[in-house]
Amino acid sequence: MSDSTLIIDGVRAKDIAASVGTPVIVYSQSEIEKRLMEFTESFKSPRLNTKVVYASKAFSCGAMLELVKNAGCGLDVVSGGEMYLAKKSGFPMEDVLFHGNNKTPREIEEAISWGAGTFVIDNRLELRRIISYAKDIKRKCRALIRINPHISAHTHSYIMTADLDSKFGISIDSRDEILAMMDELSGSEYVEFTGFHAHIGSQIFEKDAYAGEIDTMAQLIAFAEKNGCFVKCLDIGGGFAAYYTSEDSPIPVPEVCRTIIDACHTAMDKYGIRLETLMIEPGRSIVAEAGTTLYTVGDTKRTYSKKYVFVDGGMCDNIRPALYGAKYRCDLAEKMDAEKTDTVTVAGKCCESGDILIHDIPLPPAEPGDILAVYTTGAYGYSMASNYNRIGRPAVVFAKNGKARCVIRRETYEDLDALECSRDIEF
Amino acid sequence: MSDSTLIIDGVRAKDIAASVGTPVIVYSQSEIEKRLMEFTESFKSPRLNTKVVYASKAFSCGAMLELVKNAGCGLDVVSGGEMYLAKKSGFPMEDVLFHGNNKTPREIEEAISWGAGTFVIDNRLELRRIISYAKDIKRKCRALIRINPHISAHTHSYIMTADLDSKFGISIDSRDEILAMMDELSGSEYVEFTGFHAHIGSQIFEKDAYAGEIDTMAQLIAFAEKNGCFVKCLDIGGGFAAYYTSEDSPIPVPEVCRTIIDACHTAMDKYGIRLETLMIEPGRSIVAEAGTTLYTVGDTKRTYSKKYVFVDGGMCDNIRPALYGAKYRCDLAEKMDAEKTDTVTVAGKCCESGDILIHDIPLPPAEPGDILAVYTTGAYGYSMASNYNRIGRPAVVFAKNGKARCVIRRETYEDLDALECSRDIEF
Repeated sequence: MSDSTLIIDGVRAKDIAASVGTPVIVYSQSEIEKRLMEFTESFKSPRLNTKVVYASKAFSCGAMLELVKNAGCGLDVVSGGEMYLAKKSGFPMEDVLFHGNNKTPREIEEAISWGAGTFVIDNRLELRRIISYAKDIKRKCRALIRINPHISAHTHSYIMTADLDSKFGISIDSRDEILAMMDELSGSEYVEFTGFHAHIGSQIFEKDAYAGEIDTMAQLIAFAEKNGCFVKCLDIGGGFAAYYTSEDSPIPVPEVCRTIIDACHTAMDKYGIRLETLMIEPGRSIVAEAGTTLYTVGDTKRTYSKKYVFVDGGMCDNIRPALYGAKYRCDLAEKMDAEKTDTVTVAGKCCESGDILIHDIPLPPAEPGDILAVYTTGAYGYSMASNYNRIGRPAVVFAKNGKARCVIRRETYEDLDALECSRDIEF
Repeated sequence: MSDSTLIIDGVRAKDIAASVGTPVIVYSQSEIEKRLMEFTESFKSPRLNTKVVYASKAFSCGAMLELVKNAGCGLDVVSGGEMYLAKKSGFPMEDVLFHGNNKTPREIEEAISWGAGTFVIDNRLELRRIISYAKDIKRKCRALIRINPHISAHTHSYIMTADLDSKFGISIDSRDEILAMMDELSGSEYVEFTGFHAHIGSQIFEKDAYAGEIDTMAQLIAFAEKNGCFVKCLDIGGGFAAYYTSEDSPIPVPEVCRTIIDACHTAMDKYGIRLETLMIEPGRSIVAEAGTTLYTVGDTKRTYSKKYVFVDGGMCDNIRPALYGAKYRCDLAEKMDAEKTDTVTVAGKCCESGDILIHDIPLPPAEPGDILAVYTTGAYGYSMASNYNRIGRPAVVFAKNGKARCVIRRETYEDLDALECSRDIEF
């Protein structure tokens, strides 16, 4: 193989494209495993139990959950569908945390009967439904109360006293409400209050943001303890950044873990709190960089000031550029060493002007049939994919040490019609 | 039934929710039929054949295509998946127009072998692939060349000499390129050049935009005729607006049709062009207002300055608020006459701060279990829906004159796992 060829975990990208077709999302399994291990090994404290919980909304399938389980991590699920996958995949339900601002009664019942370990409780109604159903079927579970700490962190900045109006959780200022919820939980034989959860944002490049969050949450814990309630556990959520383009400078995993652990020790001493367990919920940072989407180039087109390279996917398999203005890097998989003499716009095939994957990126001259690889598509790509324009979702491949296996097959035309029916509704 | 109850095409919304569950998208079939008929009856000319072509990317399923077929309209498809549905639904393939900036070789072959009537040709490579494959299998089809007229129209304004860099079509200024494509088509025994296509935007409230487009395209047609090429057909695309909120003032269908027909007659006389057929491609304006999404209210929550109403769907079934900042109206389906004393934010259940469906809208006090109806969700709702957070897509119901039938069933947990596999790839 020439140096000019893109290799993903020992497998030539072009070979995967030839075998499975395009678009295809190829994960380096070794990279996912490395990231999981980096987190589990770095996130340790001599004074605390620690737990890394994978946020499965970033990307999930049976094969992914297997890696999470093998790494000894917990699993953060946000719907009945994510929980069903965990159950079906044989994930230890004890290690499942159930999140969400509006869990439905059905989801609550399923979570309890399927043995989900922990609820991250968003609001009072949900709390009561959980207590009531757990009692009905005599099943035990734990509860973290989700707190809005009024800290908002994104990319390079963070703001204290922000996000006053987030839809998630209970305001940290609503101390009476928080005490009332803890009190309600203390009356339950089946649902054990274990602590608090907070989450301050995504794609965070600023270590101090976590330190600020922990200090703020520690004050709440001290307040709870002063009111006679022991807080065992603090879950500080996710937001760990990934590298998409040279504009991004993610904090290395060992460093961000050390910052968090240190900040927690400091806060424990400063506020005299006991705390037994500290949790984090990385999602994006585990899978984003491990994923690469391969497309086939169709035509190229010159307009007044742009040169387009058209690919056989687009906003249907990656909504992030259109939805968030997200930026990506790409290469031609068989022209890795070729000089990047063109500046092109990579456009998808959806019938919408906004279906542009990458604006103005240097690339060697592209020709129809070339394989174009877009990097860092492993998080919130497949999981947010749609069938817009009735385009089937791509295949997903896990590569490792020169071998590859398809873990999600390509969606066919027949699959797209699977939900069609014609059933008269009787009232 | 009380006046305080939402009725959709003779069926009580609450009854549908009780029978099918929520979220559910309920279409008034009579409203779709009325819109289709309004277009076909208004879009007529004594001097031209006219054709209304439904843009199926707005919403499609077998039941919808049946209505389009019964109305005698053509069908605009933008992918193999949309074309497959047309074929499977028994839609006359002769009346299918195949759009898209990057049709794959497979899609081109399928379209020709399935007998798709017309290709809207985006670029030179595609043109050659179509000519070549049609010759290979000796099947005839027609071709419109997609032109970028450099007019951009959205909402209340339009700009001439805009969109120089759209990914779609050939610039109207590239006259040599256009002539060369027409020349190449004239040499094909199987692919007949019939005319030009242009599209200037979406949600257009400004009649003059269409007149401007037609005048511009007529100049191109005159140029083509001067070069010895008869242009039979002009397709001016879509963009017809729908009413989402009181900020919108769509032009009534008869009026916009009259404007287009008049502008075409004027241009024919002004530039001395012959033209036989005029086409339009409404999508949103046929289905948007006919659709209403019913959700069940979960908890309500007060934050510092907001009151939230949580519903059991969100950006997974309607990405438009997050993607385009789209605005919607809503009501509580069983409190239609109640005083709107609250101002609320309607938030979805997805684990993302941006999952807000409607900001600051007046509503009567909502309680858990209430049915909340969001109006004008019939276009680009279901068709852009995802399984984000592993939430199944909603059911779709067609109601008509007091009866209702489910035309797309709700996606189950099992459906969400249907594409999982574990297959070693051999190289």
